Amino acid sequence: MVHTLRTQSKTELIDITSDIQQLVKSSGVKDGYCMLYVPHTTAAVTINESADPSVREDILMILNQMVPWKAPYRHLEGNSPAHVKSTLVGASELIAIENSRLVMGTWQGIFFGEFDGPRTRKIHVNCFA
Amino acid sequence: MVHTLRTQSKTELIDITSDIQQLVKSSGVKDGYCMLYVPHTTAAVTINESADPSVREDILMILNQMVPWKAPYRHLEGNSPAHVKSTLVGASELIAIENSRLVMGTWQGIFFGEFDGPRTRKIHVNCFA
Amino acid sequence: MVHTLRTQSKTELIDITSDIQQLVKSSGVKDGYCMLYVPHTTAAVTINESADPSVREDILMILNQMVPWKAPYRHLEGNSPAHVKSTLVGASELIAIENSRLVMGTWQGIFFGEFDGPRTRKIHVNCFA
Repeated sequence: MVHTLRTQSKTELIDITSDIQQLVKSSGVKDGYCMLYVPHTTAAVTINESADPSVREDILMILNQMVPWKAPYRHLEGNSPAHVKSTLVGASELIAIENSRLVMGTWQGIFFGEFDGPRTRKIHVNCFA
Repeated sequence: MVHTLRTQSKTELIDITSDIQQLVKSSGVKDGYCMLYVPHTTAAVTINESADPSVREDILMILNQMVPWKAPYRHLEGNSPAHVKSTLVGASELIAIENSRLVMGTWQGIFFGEFDGPRTRKIHVNCFA
Repeated sequence: MVHTLRTQSKTELIDITSDIQQLVKSSGVKDGYCMLYVPHTTAAVTINESADPSVREDILMILNQMVPWKAPYRHLEGNSPAHVKSTLVGASELIAIENSRLVMGTWQGIFFGEFDGPRTRKIHVNCFA
């Protein structure tokens, strides 16, 4: 299955937990695993706190400090910082499914990491038993 | 299965290789895969050198340099650096099982990454064939 | 299956996409998953852009800036920066297989991350349905 989303900013962490949970349900897999995979090279997926939206802002702030916007980058498209963040955060997550529900911690949510937006993006959702 | 552990410091990498290996054995899975999943948002799991304990101290030192303790963080709990480290290091690992043993390199160990301790923590251990 | 490679530099991102694709084909798994696992503690695997080789140079440049070569490291082998990068980039990747082909984005390639080369290295390739 593929989940499509529209990002709104240059860099952004978007909570996609309920979208993914819905796809898990529709997959029919009761007990198994859900693999999330971002097919882009300037985006990523991560798991972090969903309760307080300021957490994702803090994560972005530090990522944007760690990976400078200006450096002697050779890639001419100008989005090298996004490629670096993609490798640091990672293109995939694996989450267990029990009783058709993602097994996550109380405070955890799934976030799509946009690092070169705004764009229309996809995330692959593969559930298996 | 769930492995519970008590961390001792603010930031810490704790070798849990033998605990996980024991759980793999007790799972009855002879050949397959072991998924490790941290259900917390201020902790992580990573694989790195287990032979020399100074390696994990060096990793923590650089993580603590890369993610400043003081910055204009908006999250009011004061543990934003821990959230950032959790996303950088990652919430899960997947390791092959052969003959009831984790298939890892000679120098590799599994480390629970505590970034906002000390606390009582959990790591989910799912083995499948 | 094990893929062996010879790295050429101290730090390097080597495109191994076609090697892994060939191993996936020879595994006989038509639809399933491919787990890549690096059994070393000073190397890693990542997915990023394969079209423009300058992207991987930019990623390495920033990684080498983020993790200083000189710091009060305690590990006496002198390769602590490589251990840190290994944990930041990660030891494994999971990719779906459809019709005997890795399911990846148009611009994505698989890269072996050498952080303490040159050396002879291995990457484990496990395909399952």
